[in-house]
Amino acid sequence: MIKLALLDVDGTLTDKTRLISTKVVETIRDVQKSGTLVSLVSGNVIPAMYALKTFVGINAPVFGENGGVMLDADVEVFFSMEKPKRFFDEITGKGMAGNLMTNQWRLCSMGYFPKNGSEDEIISLSGKHDLEIANSGFSWHILNRGQNKGYALNYLRKRYSLDLDEILVVGDSFNDIPMFLDKVKKAVPANAELQLKKKADYVASVPYGEGVTEILQKISRF
Amino acid sequence: MIKLALLDVDGTLTDKTRLISTKVVETIRDVQKSGTLVSLVSGNVIPAMYALKTFVGINAPVFGENGGVMLDADVEVFFSMEKPKRFFDEITGKGMAGNLMTNQWRLCSMGYFPKNGSEDEIISLSGKHDLEIANSGFSWHILNRGQNKGYALNYLRKRYSLDLDEILVVGDSFNDIPMFLDKVKKAVPANAELQLKKKADYVASVPYGEGVTEILQKISRF
Repeated sequence: MIKLALLDVDGTLTDKTRLISTKVVETIRDVQKSGTLVSLVSGNVIPAMYALKTFVGINAPVFGENGGVMLDADVEVFFSMEKPKRFFDEITGKGMAGNLMTNQWRLCSMGYFPKNGSEDEIISLSGKHDLEIANSGFSWHILNRGQNKGYALNYLRKRYSLDLDEILVVGDSFNDIPMFLDKVKKAVPANAELQLKKKADYVASVPYGEGVTEILQKISRF
Repeated sequence: MIKLALLDVDGTLTDKTRLISTKVVETIRDVQKSGTLVSLVSGNVIPAMYALKTFVGINAPVFGENGGVMLDADVEVFFSMEKPKRFFDEITGKGMAGNLMTNQWRLCSMGYFPKNGSEDEIISLSGKHDLEIANSGFSWHILNRGQNKGYALNYLRKRYSLDLDEILVVGDSFNDIPMFLDKVKKAVPANAELQLKKKADYVASVPYGEGVTEILQKISRF
């Protein structure tokens, strides 16, 4: 039986223009009323996750910066800004990447957009600095090693003393893979990357938030 | 004809527990498709307004800190943090008020909760420091003089070259009064304070986001 659903945001609860599905908002509220815990984990900044937690009404802690920061009653930061910021300064200084507006609210990662076809070169360079690059399909992030959505999953598993098969994860993109663990229940909307579809226990018939609505309505079957 | 709708958030788009109405989200998207500009103005912090702008899909700039900060492509701050922060330190130092978690993201105002029945004393003290206190019904804010929702309205009026009667404002609480100007069209959900109902051109038959849905569906009549 699923006791916790851990959901990605962009491309999962939202469409490709980042509009949130009002159907999935209603469905999240419904499954919470039935006693299921729901958490969100995103590459986005923690005050944006605070807004989602408040206005959607999420009953478990939420995570920003790919799992590096958590908001419960207060903000908790699990990783350091030192290395991501130094690498960000290097690649922007070399003209390989540009700044994101949301970086002013980041605490342990930096967002960027690649310039001049330097996507692969940045990824290659990051490895030498003991850093990881995540691409949500909406933006690129420089992260500390181990700072990923699996970290958030593991935190929640311990906090609520859950078995892995009592957790449902839902995501659509490459940065969701670290939470797509073997024993965890995994579902994806129809727009998910093929690599995630292959790992999933369930692939929704429709994309985006409508697909996640379909998944959450079947949560008792997982 | 209404060309711009300027909407409060807490208690207006949300219920009293701050859950956003999915009906009003859909209706905002509908009126925007018909060519109407929509803006939000709230006492909340600007990255939370960024999240609302992104995930609801708001087509005009949005304002946080009661109109003191605007988010368009980037963040623009219209007032200073100096006086609000000094006064906040004074009243918290005296044990009259406590801190809000969201203060870490504020740029030109401070939020607090009054302690030991000191609501009125804080308001009285604020006047001596050339500051204003706003109460959204959800939290208390220390603001610079002139930092209010009327400031946001005036900014948008100039930016889009609008007449006052081409603007519809919707709010429920005392901090919405500065945008309830004479020639502006004014509407309120059924939960609004009596003082706002008396000023309103239209009072919805139902409260909260469902009331604002009713208002926006009648926008062509204003």
